[in-house]
Amino acid sequence: MSETDAPVTAAVLVIGDEILSGRTKDKNIGYIADYLTAMGIDLREVRIVPDEEDEIVAAVNALRARYTYLFTTGGIGPTHDDITADCVAKAFEVGISHDERAVAMLRTRYENPADLNEARLRMARIPHGADLIENPISKAPGFRIGNVHVMAGVPSIMQAMMDNIGPTLKGGRTMLSVSIDAQGTPEGAYASGLGAIQKAHPGVIIGSYPNFTGKTFNNQIVVRSRDEALLAAAKAAVEALIAELVAARPAPVP
Amino acid sequence: MSETDAPVTAAVLVIGDEILSGRTKDKNIGYIADYLTAMGIDLREVRIVPDEEDEIVAAVNALRARYTYLFTTGGIGPTHDDITADCVAKAFEVGISHDERAVAMLRTRYENPADLNEARLRMARIPHGADLIENPISKAPGFRIGNVHVMAGVPSIMQAMMDNIGPTLKGGRTMLSVSIDAQGTPEGAYASGLGAIQKAHPGVIIGSYPNFTGKTFNNQIVVRSRDEALLAAAKAAVEALIAELVAARPAPVP
Repeated sequence: MSETDAPVTAAVLVIGDEILSGRTKDKNIGYIADYLTAMGIDLREVRIVPDEEDEIVAAVNALRARYTYLFTTGGIGPTHDDITADCVAKAFEVGISHDERAVAMLRTRYENPADLNEARLRMARIPHGADLIENPISKAPGFRIGNVHVMAGVPSIMQAMMDNIGPTLKGGRTMLSVSIDAQGTPEGAYASGLGAIQKAHPGVIIGSYPNFTGKTFNNQIVVRSRDEALLAAAKAAVEALIAELVAARPAPVP
Repeated sequence: MSETDAPVTAAVLVIGDEILSGRTKDKNIGYIADYLTAMGIDLREVRIVPDEEDEIVAAVNALRARYTYLFTTGGIGPTHDDITADCVAKAFEVGISHDERAVAMLRTRYENPADLNEARLRMARIPHGADLIENPISKAPGFRIGNVHVMAGVPSIMQAMMDNIGPTLKGGRTMLSVSIDAQGTPEGAYASGLGAIQKAHPGVIIGSYPNFTGKTFNNQIVVRSRDEALLAAAKAAVEALIAELVAARPAPVP
C-alpha cells in the first residue's frame, strides 16, 4: 500500500464551558468535518470538554495517541479561563513560556506598546517546541506540536488558521461519495434491500439518512468509497433498488 | 448536602458517520445542552463516534460510568447502519429482541400489516430490561436502560423524545447566569481584572466570550452560579470593572 493509500485519521477536541452550557452553539465541528473530508482525511471522533485542566489534558492525550491528527478549538484567548496552551504543554510534558515569535506577531496588532499588557501577552505563551499557526485576523497565533493543532474558537479565526494548516497535512485518498434520493420511499421499505447491497459491496460504505420534513420522509442514501469503480457499481445497485420500489409502489403508507 | 444540592451530570453521545463526514450538521448537541442547563443538569462531555460497534460500546460504557445520565442520538432506524440498540445491549451485557410493546407502537403506524416488514420490525428490537421512550412522530420508540437514554437522530423526533424524558430526570439546582456586555472593551483590557474577580468569587464561574463581528469584538462576560447572592456580588464586580475601563478608555486600539 503506498503512502497515499494509508488511511489518514483525525479527531477534533472542542474546549469550552460555553458550548456545554448551550450558551454558544458550536459552528466549528461541521466546518472541520467538511474540510477534512474534502482532503481525504477521516474524522473519526469528536469530543467536547469543559475548561478544566484534567479534562483537557486527558482528552488531548487520548486523542493524539489514537489518530493521525488532533485539532483543538477554543481556550487560547487572554482571559483566566483560556487554559488550552498550558494543558497541551502539560499533555506533552514540555515547558511553556512567552514565545518571541508570538510576541512579535501581537506587537503588530497594538500600536501603543502599553496596550500589549500582561493579559494579552498570555496569548504568546506557547509550549516549547511548537510551531506557530498564523492568525491573520487578530494576530494571536495558534500552534502545532507533534500531531496536535491548537486553534481559536472564534469561527472566522479558526477557519483562517485551518487554511494555514491545510497545506501541511497529508491527505488520504479522497473519499468519493454520491447521494441517491430515495424518491419518497420510506426507510423501512428499502432497508432489507439496502442491507443486501451493503453486504455485496464490501469496498463501499452505504448510509441511509432520513430527512423528516414535518410530514414526510425525504430520505437520502449516501454511498461512499475511495474506489471509483466500486462506488459506481454500488450506486447502480442502489438506484436499481429504488427504481424497483418506486415502480411497485402501492397506495401510500400514512 | 440535600439531594437537590448534589451535582447532577450528563454526557451526550452522538452516533453517526454522517456527522463526522460533515454531510449532516448536528443540531442536537446545542438543543440538549440548553435543555439540560435549564433543568439544572451539568452537561460535562460530548462525544461523536462513527457507526461502528466497538466505538459505540466503548463510548457508552465510558460515559455511563462517569456521569449521572447519558443521552445518545442516532442509529435507531430500520437500516443496516442502525446498530445503536444492539451496541447498548452489548454494553450492558443483556440480550436484545423484539419488544411486544414496541411492536404494538409500530403497528399503530402501519395500517397494512404487510408494511410492518422485517426491516421496520428491527426498530422494535429493544435491550432486555429497558423502558420505552415514546415517539409521537414516527412511532418507533427510543428506550432507557439504567442511566442511558437512547434517542433518534432526526431532530424533531429527538426533541419529542426529550420532552418525554424530561419529567423523569432529577434536576440539580438550576445554574443561574447573567451576561454582561463588555461595551466594546477588548478581552485583553479586562482579562487581568476579570481574573482577579474570579479569584475573589469562588462560588461563581466567570467566562469571557469574544464575539468577533468581522471588524470589532463584541464581547460578553457570563457569570454563573447556583447561588443568587454570590451571583449578584460577582455581577456587580464585573460591571464595576467594565464601567471603570469604559470611563478610562483612551483612543481606540485598532
